[in-house]
Amino acid sequence: MSIENLNCNKSFGGWHKQYSHRSETLNCSMRFAIYLPPQASNGQKVPVLYWLSGLTCSDENFMQKAGAQRIAAELGIAIVAPDTSPRGEGVADDEGYDLGQGAGFYVDATQAPWNRHYRMYDYVVNELPQLIESTFPVSDQRAIAGHSMGGHGALTIALRNPDRYRSVSAFSPISNPINSPWGKKALAAYLGKDTHTWRDYDASVLMRAATQTVPALVDQGESDEFLAEQLKPERLEAAAKASGYPLELRRQDGYDHSYYFIASFIEEHLRFPAAYLNK
Amino acid sequence: MSIENLNCNKSFGGWHKQYSHRSETLNCSMRFAIYLPPQASNGQKVPVLYWLSGLTCSDENFMQKAGAQRIAAELGIAIVAPDTSPRGEGVADDEGYDLGQGAGFYVDATQAPWNRHYRMYDYVVNELPQLIESTFPVSDQRAIAGHSMGGHGALTIALRNPDRYRSVSAFSPISNPINSPWGKKALAAYLGKDTHTWRDYDASVLMRAATQTVPALVDQGESDEFLAEQLKPERLEAAAKASGYPLELRRQDGYDHSYYFIASFIEEHLRFPAAYLNK
Repeated sequence: MSIENLNCNKSFGGWHKQYSHRSETLNCSMRFAIYLPPQASNGQKVPVLYWLSGLTCSDENFMQKAGAQRIAAELGIAIVAPDTSPRGEGVADDEGYDLGQGAGFYVDATQAPWNRHYRMYDYVVNELPQLIESTFPVSDQRAIAGHSMGGHGALTIALRNPDRYRSVSAFSPISNPINSPWGKKALAAYLGKDTHTWRDYDASVLMRAATQTVPALVDQGESDEFLAEQLKPERLEAAAKASGYPLELRRQDGYDHSYYFIASFIEEHLRFPAAYLNK
Repeated sequence: MSIENLNCNKSFGGWHKQYSHRSETLNCSMRFAIYLPPQASNGQKVPVLYWLSGLTCSDENFMQKAGAQRIAAELGIAIVAPDTSPRGEGVADDEGYDLGQGAGFYVDATQAPWNRHYRMYDYVVNELPQLIESTFPVSDQRAIAGHSMGGHGALTIALRNPDRYRSVSAFSPISNPINSPWGKKALAAYLGKDTHTWRDYDASVLMRAATQTVPALVDQGESDEFLAEQLKPERLEAAAKASGYPLELRRQDGYDHSYYFIASFIEEHLRFPAAYLNK
């Protein structure tokens, strides 16, 4: 696998780097960002937190706006932020911000024209960690987190792969996409009209049926403009209650859907996985 | 003075807000951002750190990328980030990123067509603090800081107004603009060919001649791509030595000109003014 370094910035004693590589899974060139804490420069293999971003984001938003590097440097955790979809001229797209490029929804599409490139679930679960673990001084201890569409991605991926992740956390996740306008639009396009297939990508459905668990933390702003219509954290809470899932869901008074919310609580979303990594 | 609130985001228990207002000084509508720490919601008048951004920036870059709110909330300091120039359709501009809109250089232009709007020095020193202090729960205790072109702005403004600021700090300032390509281009356009008039906007010239002082901190990345040609911190260091100015200039190994550098050291650029404010 060839990989090209695009950018390199010293950050809190460690390094923020951007790379592009040819993805076999997605059948296109992909970009990702990685933060390597100072410990990774000292011959130590550090654990990795995978961060999945929300609609319209790339590999850059989280690294520039969340302020996560300070704590990652303190705790010795690498952070990997992939893009939110396949990209490029030959890749199918849609006029809406909530479908196509920038809106991969972390699913493996089965419907044309999307099934040629849109396999973000497989990419995040398999190809990306293989690439990261064979390229950088990191261990195979993984945690996963995300925001909004990426919170949905993090929860569903951890719920379906409990052996691969030590913890999962999310800000403002789309908790029940089969019942949200964003989710219905994307899942219908990528997976087709048979709604039964959508259930594999719904955190509330998966959590209700879970038999094996991953420690889970969710923060939700109470002034989030998408709360009632799109996010529906109460569905996830009910699912956790039904199956006894170890979910801590916190409602934060006054906070919205923006990176100002994420930055305010990101420290706890690094200390949370840190308690389960490096053990 | 009328002022319109554009945005409001809860951040570390306080509030990030964007406003627009009609500026008499700049003869156009201007936008600024303010971070009000939690203490400002409790009837307390908090001191203000003014942040001046660099070339191409607006009022948004610092608030989104520097990660300053966490410490401002802890210390009870408001932060005000103005735009970097007058803006709008009727405002003179240039094709270059380093002249015109986004590149006001914190000077009062004397040359046409710039002198109709470009009076960022006067705006930052006078109109903006008057507006802030009459609108928000803040005291008249001020500190000033900035990055690159904004570091030049912060240093020159503090050096010329030592009674108005308790401290000054800068990341990667254009320390001797009369001898840098960026500075020569901008000062020639805004102030004309008589280079004697440029000296009022040169931190190294001003610091060498200073008789009244403001505590000053400068951080400079040693891998900054603009270090040798544009920034010239050694000129500022020599000026401070000549006049006995209380300047601490630190060279940070491996850091570049980006916000990843600023974020890595922003905590100290809030603790530094905090030691002089609220006394």
